[in-house]
Amino acid sequence: MDRIMETAIEADPKLPIIRITRDFAATPEQLFRAHTDPALFAQWAGPDRLTTRIEHWDARTGGSWRYVAVDGDAEYWFHGCFHEVRQDRIVQTFTFEGEPDGVTLETQTLEDLGDGRTRLHAQSLVDSFEGRDAILRSGMEVGVDEGYAKLERMIIDGAV
Amino acid sequence: MDRIMETAIEADPKLPIIRITRDFAATPEQLFRAHTDPALFAQWAGPDRLTTRIEHWDARTGGSWRYVAVDGDAEYWFHGCFHEVRQDRIVQTFTFEGEPDGVTLETQTLEDLGDGRTRLHAQSLVDSFEGRDAILRSGMEVGVDEGYAKLERMIIDGAV
Repeated sequence: MDRIMETAIEADPKLPIIRITRDFAATPEQLFRAHTDPALFAQWAGPDRLTTRIEHWDARTGGSWRYVAVDGDAEYWFHGCFHEVRQDRIVQTFTFEGEPDGVTLETQTLEDLGDGRTRLHAQSLVDSFEGRDAILRSGMEVGVDEGYAKLERMIIDGAV
Repeated sequence: MDRIMETAIEADPKLPIIRITRDFAATPEQLFRAHTDPALFAQWAGPDRLTTRIEHWDARTGGSWRYVAVDGDAEYWFHGCFHEVRQDRIVQTFTFEGEPDGVTLETQTLEDLGDGRTRLHAQSLVDSFEGRDAILRSGMEVGVDEGYAKLERMIIDGAV
């Protein structure tokens, strides 16, 4: 059986895409809630040293979102719109407001592995390889790893 | 002086992107209205044989849209969200509901050429070359050409 125990993050060799794969001991419904309920999302998203505060959140097809990641006195704002929100797939846009013209199209797919396990596939598409590689150099991997580790602990604790 | 008299449509050789460039004898403000006012947009968008009927339209950052293109008894539905709407740049998502998992990230930039002329740059980004080439084969170029020709006539007629 193909098991992924940690977060796999890879840059596509031919497309300006980052792909992330992570297995969770949770149902697709639990992972869907963790990605769409703002109170849950704010508890796990991003690196450990940052605190997420949601300003706006409407996780429906055609809705939008904005939040700030706070690190002491520093604030990092992000916003986007939800292109599609359905039980097995969330497609949304993403901009870090420090780079206001940079836009990522994010697709998250929930693959039911059965027995209460789910494989999360997250794809980030941008319009240049330079932009993609700048995201990878920005410390994004640490945020993804630490964020999913927090989510895993919430699942174990029954918080999702 | 570099003048583009017709619609230029090109597939990027290294990225899953279609780029369209078209000059108009209109100000950026006129082209912005033509792209964000639903009554104006419905008059010019798409090929001549189709009629556009707007179902939902909220052309603001974080808003969304849905419309149907009608060809006799046939209906083609499209929807997306507006990631960013500002005077010189509109970023939105786009899905043809006949291919519900296909998503395009569309960026339209209005370059003021002065003297009441504007160059429209439209970029369509998808997540595979196969998907990009399928869009080109779908007759998209005819729709773009005929749509912009209608928009040009509306500008000449003072309707925008």
